[in-house]
Amino acid sequence: MITHPAFTVEPWSLRATSLDFGVLAQTESLFTLANGHLGWRGNLDEGDPHGLPGSYLAGVYEVRPMPYAEPAYGYPDSGETIINITDGKVVRLLVDDEPFDVRRGDILKHEQELDLRAGVLRRTVEWRSPAGRTVRVATTRLVSFTQRAIGAIRYEVTPLDGPARVVLQSELVANEPMPKPEADPRAAAVLSEPLNSEENFVHGTGVQLIHTTGESGLRIAVAMDHEVFGPHVHVEADSYPDLGRVTVASKLASGDCLRMVKYVSHAWSARRTAPAMRDQVAGELTLAHESGWDGLVSEQREYLDAFWERADVIVDGDPEVQQAVRFALFHILQASARAEGVAIASKGLTGRGYDGHAFWDSEMFVLPVLAFVAPHAVADALRWRHSTLDRARERARQLGLTGAAFPWRTITGRECSGYWPAGAAAFHVNAAIARAVIGYLRTDGNTEFERTIGLDLLVETARLWRSLGYFDEDARFRIDGVTGPDEYSALVRNNLYTNLMARENFTAAVAVVERHPDRMPDLGVTDEEVGGWRTAADRMYVPYDERRGVHPQSSGFTDRQVWDFAATPPEHYPLLLHYPYFDLYRKQVVKQADVVLAMQWVPDAFTAEQKVRNFSYYERLTVRDSSLSASSQAVVAADVGALDLAYDYLGETALIDLRDLEHNTSDGLHLASLAGIWIALVQGFGGARRRRAGLTLRPTLPRGIDRLGFGVAAAGCQLRVEIGPDETRYRLVEGDELTLYHDGTELTLRGSEVRVMPTVRPPAGPIVTQPAGREPARRYPGSAGRSAPSD
Amino acid sequence: MITHPAFTVEPWSLRATSLDFGVLAQTESLFTLANGHLGWRGNLDEGDPHGLPGSYLAGVYEVRPMPYAEPAYGYPDSGETIINITDGKVVRLLVDDEPFDVRRGDILKHEQELDLRAGVLRRTVEWRSPAGRTVRVATTRLVSFTQRAIGAIRYEVTPLDGPARVVLQSELVANEPMPKPEADPRAAAVLSEPLNSEENFVHGTGVQLIHTTGESGLRIAVAMDHEVFGPHVHVEADSYPDLGRVTVASKLASGDCLRMVKYVSHAWSARRTAPAMRDQVAGELTLAHESGWDGLVSEQREYLDAFWERADVIVDGDPEVQQAVRFALFHILQASARAEGVAIASKGLTGRGYDGHAFWDSEMFVLPVLAFVAPHAVADALRWRHSTLDRARERARQLGLTGAAFPWRTITGRECSGYWPAGAAAFHVNAAIARAVIGYLRTDGNTEFERTIGLDLLVETARLWRSLGYFDEDARFRIDGVTGPDEYSALVRNNLYTNLMARENFTAAVAVVERHPDRMPDLGVTDEEVGGWRTAADRMYVPYDERRGVHPQSSGFTDRQVWDFAATPPEHYPLLLHYPYFDLYRKQVVKQADVVLAMQWVPDAFTAEQKVRNFSYYERLTVRDSSLSASSQAVVAADVGALDLAYDYLGETALIDLRDLEHNTSDGLHLASLAGIWIALVQGFGGARRRRAGLTLRPTLPRGIDRLGFGVAAAGCQLRVEIGPDETRYRLVEGDELTLYHDGTELTLRGSEVRVMPTVRPPAGPIVTQPAGREPARRYPGSAGRSAPSD
Repeated sequence: MITHPAFTVEPWSLRATSLDFGVLAQTESLFTLANGHLGWRGNLDEGDPHGLPGSYLAGVYEVRPMPYAEPAYGYPDSGETIINITDGKVVRLLVDDEPFDVRRGDILKHEQELDLRAGVLRRTVEWRSPAGRTVRVATTRLVSFTQRAIGAIRYEVTPLDGPARVVLQSELVANEPMPKPEADPRAAAVLSEPLNSEENFVHGTGVQLIHTTGESGLRIAVAMDHEVFGPHVHVEADSYPDLGRVTVASKLASGDCLRMVKYVSHAWSARRTAPAMRDQVAGELTLAHESGWDGLVSEQREYLDAFWERADVIVDGDPEVQQAVRFALFHILQASARAEGVAIASKGLTGRGYDGHAFWDSEMFVLPVLAFVAPHAVADALRWRHSTLDRARERARQLGLTGAAFPWRTITGRECSGYWPAGAAAFHVNAAIARAVIGYLRTDGNTEFERTIGLDLLVETARLWRSLGYFDEDARFRIDGVTGPDEYSALVRNNLYTNLMARENFTAAVAVVERHPDRMPDLGVTDEEVGGWRTAADRMYVPYDERRGVHPQSSGFTDRQVWDFAATPPEHYPLLLHYPYFDLYRKQVVKQADVVLAMQWVPDAFTAEQKVRNFSYYERLTVRDSSLSASSQAVVAADVGALDLAYDYLGETALIDLRDLEHNTSDGLHLASLAGIWIALVQGFGGARRRRAGLTLRPTLPRGIDRLGFGVAAAGCQLRVEIGPDETRYRLVEGDELTLYHDGTELTLRGSEVRVMPTVRPPAGPIVTQPAGREPARRYPGSAGRSAPSD
Repeated sequence: MITHPAFTVEPWSLRATSLDFGVLAQTESLFTLANGHLGWRGNLDEGDPHGLPGSYLAGVYEVRPMPYAEPAYGYPDSGETIINITDGKVVRLLVDDEPFDVRRGDILKHEQELDLRAGVLRRTVEWRSPAGRTVRVATTRLVSFTQRAIGAIRYEVTPLDGPARVVLQSELVANEPMPKPEADPRAAAVLSEPLNSEENFVHGTGVQLIHTTGESGLRIAVAMDHEVFGPHVHVEADSYPDLGRVTVASKLASGDCLRMVKYVSHAWSARRTAPAMRDQVAGELTLAHESGWDGLVSEQREYLDAFWERADVIVDGDPEVQQAVRFALFHILQASARAEGVAIASKGLTGRGYDGHAFWDSEMFVLPVLAFVAPHAVADALRWRHSTLDRARERARQLGLTGAAFPWRTITGRECSGYWPAGAAAFHVNAAIARAVIGYLRTDGNTEFERTIGLDLLVETARLWRSLGYFDEDARFRIDGVTGPDEYSALVRNNLYTNLMARENFTAAVAVVERHPDRMPDLGVTDEEVGGWRTAADRMYVPYDERRGVHPQSSGFTDRQVWDFAATPPEHYPLLLHYPYFDLYRKQVVKQADVVLAMQWVPDAFTAEQKVRNFSYYERLTVRDSSLSASSQAVVAADVGALDLAYDYLGETALIDLRDLEHNTSDGLHLASLAGIWIALVQGFGGARRRRAGLTLRPTLPRGIDRLGFGVAAAGCQLRVEIGPDETRYRLVEGDELTLYHDGTELTLRGSEVRVMPTVRPPAGPIVTQPAGREPARRYPGSAGRSAPSD
């Protein structure tokens, strides 16, 4: 979209200067407002036309049956899917009895702006009705970070060329008709009419609807109320089982403005009664009223000012990436800020893609960013995982294992994958959870969290690995039958990434148990068990191919036949839509970073030479049919000195949604890719890592970026880093003292002093190639010769 | 059932001397009458009660949708399932207005007998009605081998203790209500009411019904007519869309007999019109009438006399096995005799298990038996495969391969597996087809068949292997990503069995093309392509584990963790119902013969020492959760000299259906296991193999069998072999001259001379063990110490 002429590149907004029906659903995803609890897609106020109507509450789902042509042991017989709740965004307009519809009459102007500092979506339209009357419609919409139940809309309409009778119909709509799902399995199953009406009633200028879901047993209450300003106003309210409607009629002279503020409050519960929820949404509405529109707007601004002060990333020299990283941070905040005890879905609250499920990428992509910019959200997310521990234990039992086996995809914690090579074998999700615990503890040093949530999660995942793996005849600890991150392989032996991550999991479990031995009886942990983890970590098998001098992605991987890239036409990507699994799985072809992901997250397990050889080897095989790949490739490219290539991958990850590179932004944004922009910049070029010893940085800059600034939360301090071509500046903005390592040199910052260190200029990295046609777009003009040939 | 007190052990019948509702469905399967075209389960004449009503026409199916929780490329979106056609078996009886129902009144006698020489099912009942009237009902049923469209029933009723008004209602019933399917995926999907009425009409004492299927577009015509003998008879006929009924009423004095003969004719077509089929079934009925009941019975007897003369197997000393092998041969004949252009399903026409699909076991188990006892049926079965070649070519294209990829399971030739590790990766089905061609050509030497059907099948399967495998860096030909016969592994590299069978496939394709070079242009075969097959055969990779001195089932198999048999309780078998695939697939645990199957069918690829070591190694791992395993273990056990153990496995395969060892005989008989009885006897103890050089035998006898006699078709001759404890006698019963090899000694038989050779007494075989609790039942008293310890 950013290449679409309607979209402008600017530092603090995403703006569409006209309306293009061809990218309507994508635009709705990009313009989503959310706070981690409530999400409103950027649907047009008047409801029609839409790409995909979407109002979501995190954790609200319906059960859907999961059919199998040939069922087998351990297959889940039902899953969970996000549902569109009662839509409170809708405000319809009639001008002299002509419904305002952008497909009728003439649009003289249409602009939408997502303001990343204000946290609002603004829209301005000038429309001439088929009858010839021109009006200006100006709306501002917000989903409040400070009052998480509340969405609000200010709606203003002004006739521009003569008087007009104007009617606003502000609605609550339940069971909105949905477009049919695509055949693409990545799109969610649609459940038509998931809401059963329980109550509906009018109170003054407001309406409240309460619904329940059929199978999942949830209750959802949505209420709206209004303030109206304007001449000759007449207001009515009606309610029906699936519709609440407040009608505002007015006769306006040319230039007169009719203004309405709509407050919508939302609540859901699996336990609370209808009367309790009735009161809850009414109470929330009262609080919103009390703040008023201006109050909500200013609270929103304050909240975001504080966020940007910590989190902002400055990218001088590349306005597209500058815009993209702020857009990304904003959406990461929107997905997580007020999630508070529910999952962070892979698409946040921006669409129904992947059924609204959370995957491992929450822990491996989103939480690492939050750990730097909003650590409390990491703790919340891990508390959610912890709350699902019993289900994970049960699943482990079902799979014949001990400890906890967290689900591959889920909303509430139960396994919802209908593809067992993922749902029963992609155990690395457990290592991702352990890694998020480790990362959070290194950020925050929260002892109570470590003693409870952290310890439980590390112990139960360590137990899983211990029961999953075994000591072979040579006393090496092996883990067979797993699916690693690369989805073009499955059910392999000794996936390098999994084994290294499991080793970290064991080590962390040993350490945390040793620090809190009093908790051992609670979990029945014995010294013998801990000894077993230590031995497994010490004896962990790390496959290595001596003949080729690289780490195989899994045992035997490098012996496989190499995919025939030359015979693969461009239109056959993504490969999974054109080739059967059996063929993908048996060959050397990599969907997404796997060994490269291992080098990103367990960098100390590799020598510098191994990193170069591995990176070169896997670049030749990696097709990036997953949006989870480019950022990891960027980080490792930067690590091995291939800065131009790292910059190319940064560009790709930065634009996955803004340019709809995967053709499914319509279903929602790729939260992990959005996180990947930050990761590529800060972990890649900044070289920032949380190691056991503390925070380390190795600042570099690629050609094309003149200055890179970012914030880091560490050990209770808030650090700002600014990387220039020659110098890197460190400064504490909160906290008194922080020790870090700049390119291996220990550095202790105190108070507000600024420390200046030389920016690292790594030796030129290797020349690497990608499969024909799968090279990333070059970002720096003429960079091709440096990091990779262009064909 | 044979252990059930109702069932008797006798040489030429299966007899149930009372009726047990607990094994009703199993009894129906065992008492099925069929001829390869038409199958009638052994349902009670009066229809109620039933376990599973079943009337089948081979090739008649309905399409059923195949759902997936997560669809992917290449998954079939619909499958095929056998349907119950219009049931012509039903004859209801009223005695003084009291319906004859075995659940009411008193059964004074109930006997059913499947007569294996006469080819009929007889039933005799003495029943006292609730009103106190006793009648004898005697019925005889046949499905004609000589008139394949015809089933016939002779029904006789006689009051025994006073006069009775008797009514017979002879019916055609379409869309019979079916019991609900079980959750077990091996049971078929039920399609309720698959038949749509097209025509129904009465003609004299007969009725005809024509139906069509909804999706598969087939037309099915069934007609009945009757002959009635008795006093005071009144006959009426009615027809309705799903019911034809002929009512025969009579007043009988005590001792009077009312006799009715019912003829039912059947036809189906995907192309013929209703008028054409109307005439077809009427014509078939006329022919049956002309033969009359006695004529049909005597034709049946003649057909079977000829069959038994060639095929009979004599097992002195073990009456159970004697009965079982004749029962098995009879059912193999029933499944195949008149199949003529359609598939031989894995359950024949005895039930709806596995959806009525044909699998590889048709070629690997059933056809090898038919090749010895009824070679024409092998040619028919391979002509059916040949008729599906275009679909198999299309499937190969879809999988990115060349040649033909035959389906894992099917009725008409399209892939119907909803589990891709089988449906897209169990390529060994193609080798099985090639092997059946090779076996048939060695039996029959039919040059025209070889030039056409045989050559096409061998060439297209060779092409498949060539495109599936590749030459590695050491120029070895490897085949990766396949699922072999053992279903507790999947997606492996270099499955030993598959590689050896593919090598045979290549070699045979080269030979047949060299013999018929004129056919090369038809298929576009070039000398270069043939050279490629030769090289692939020469360079075929045969994995071998030097460290352990055994052949791994696939690359790396012997390095896997061994399944923890000690921790597996008996009730957790079959394992697939209690453990997830990921766990089974990654460990050393074998569902069914795989390396052992390779040693059975490609014996010359192994030294005698390797056979002993391999057999011992895999016995420890093989749990026999598949009915396809015991017969192969019997054959290889005999080969390595473990005769007692071979006898144990013979016993197991012999009793799988007769004792319902797998608890699913209710869904139909296990045709491959039935074939396995013969294979264990003839290939196992007889040592009979068709090698390239000719027929070889190595006759032995286990303790417990005093004499083993069997027939062999070879090179246009018919040979009888009789193995006694000391001497083995060979004699030609047809043909002038045959050369064979007795334990390596060439022997040429001429005319009717009897050649006597010493029976082989192999040295004692190895002591082998099975997983705890999975030992076969000992067949020879006290044999445990010889072939295997008992724990």
